[in-house]
Amino acid sequence: MVRQRVQRVIVTRVDASGSRRRPDRVIVEEPLTIQLDGAVVTTTMRTPGHDFELAAGFCFTEGLLGGATVAGVRYCADGPAIDSEFNVVTVETGGRAPVPTPRLGTTSSSCGLCGRDQLDALTERLVPYLPDAVAIDPGVLAAVPQSVLDGQGLFGETGAVHAAAAFDADGQILLTREDVGRHNAVDKVVGAQLLDGRLPAVTGAIAGLFVSGRASIEMVQKAWAAGFRALVAVSAPTSLAVEAARRANLTLVGFVRQDGFNVY
Amino acid sequence: MVRQRVQRVIVTRVDASGSRRRPDRVIVEEPLTIQLDGAVVTTTMRTPGHDFELAAGFCFTEGLLGGATVAGVRYCADGPAIDSEFNVVTVETGGRAPVPTPRLGTTSSSCGLCGRDQLDALTERLVPYLPDAVAIDPGVLAAVPQSVLDGQGLFGETGAVHAAAAFDADGQILLTREDVGRHNAVDKVVGAQLLDGRLPAVTGAIAGLFVSGRASIEMVQKAWAAGFRALVAVSAPTSLAVEAARRANLTLVGFVRQDGFNVY
Repeated sequence: MVRQRVQRVIVTRVDASGSRRRPDRVIVEEPLTIQLDGAVVTTTMRTPGHDFELAAGFCFTEGLLGGATVAGVRYCADGPAIDSEFNVVTVETGGRAPVPTPRLGTTSSSCGLCGRDQLDALTERLVPYLPDAVAIDPGVLAAVPQSVLDGQGLFGETGAVHAAAAFDADGQILLTREDVGRHNAVDKVVGAQLLDGRLPAVTGAIAGLFVSGRASIEMVQKAWAAGFRALVAVSAPTSLAVEAARRANLTLVGFVRQDGFNVY
Repeated sequence: MVRQRVQRVIVTRVDASGSRRRPDRVIVEEPLTIQLDGAVVTTTMRTPGHDFELAAGFCFTEGLLGGATVAGVRYCADGPAIDSEFNVVTVETGGRAPVPTPRLGTTSSSCGLCGRDQLDALTERLVPYLPDAVAIDPGVLAAVPQSVLDGQGLFGETGAVHAAAAFDADGQILLTREDVGRHNAVDKVVGAQLLDGRLPAVTGAIAGLFVSGRASIEMVQKAWAAGFRALVAVSAPTSLAVEAARRANLTLVGFVRQDGFNVY
């Protein structure tokens, strides 16, 4: 049984003509616990589907694999693994990945991490790109959001789901994933590439990572970890996202619309 | 020194007329570690400002206080507490709150939590409202988003920040908070009310909680925990949000616009 990703509900629509009941559809969210070699690393609220990609992508983009190869991904239940059947997924490296440490004990300095500490940790883990400009044709870039939207099934049904997509230098959408969570959608894209042996993205034909919302530092981190040279967001980046992209020499584009965009 | 909430950057604007460099502003995100009686409970990426409200609100809405009163909120550093100066905040109950347990070990059933388990846990912790309909005038409700937007300083500057607001039965906006994170904006509103002795919200003049984005189960949980009778979202709710609101007898409104809205 594959879990539903959209659920029917009856809503009361209220507008100038009065109120009436009608059927509607909402996006499904369900918790997914991700384990690495059997140790719990996180629980995320996600839309079922592509759970193995999500789990593998999360472990990869968060730097939990430490260079280890993913030997397999499975649900905790025995028997044949059917995507989206359960809510615990284990990413297996045969013990080659470092043992994950709970995030809660990680505050070491007396007054906490600051954004600069985070940037330093990222730069320690990930190698910056060479500072050669990525030349993506402006017309190509401006068309990416509509191309992604055209391929989004869940958004049309529910009006509220995030999308992430990998696209090439010609603006061709290579892969789109949707999720109630923006981070999950990105992890699903990266996980799909990882499980398909197509990472880092930059060595293949892949040019950029598109996200349907805003660009936070986590988004830059995930794009950088996966080898994307450009991160293209429909909405605004945050201050730390801008700084992280500059450290990475990653092209960060925001507010991308048919009529233009900003390069940060 | 109060930390900046908006940061200036130089962007390259690309559109049909070509490309040119110009100054722009982006929203600041910085990590905040929240402690309860000295034990770390979470680290969240937030926009500096109202950190004490955020920390107190988070502990309250997540059910970490266990009925204990907040005796104080302070930065980890000694000396006078200036809001937003540091990145670790401790909520103090004099040890009356339960000792927080790291979330990572909490998966007990063999194949993980499912949405229904989460709903059951919520219903165990929070008392459902009586099933009397909350009658908020449709015209009042439809005007709330614009009223909140009128009072949003950071959104106008950066084009990308979430807002949460408490409003009364007349649609008066009582309190607005902005943050790079939707959950943080809600926790800041609830924390402000908590620190001001105005919780649960339903005993005061407060009718509803507005959020500028979508309504996930966490949003319903936070609104419910704080005693709001209605949660009003600009965008769509998720499946679990709809189910949680039904269990709570909390009025859940989505897609609120000038010309109407949906009641789930």
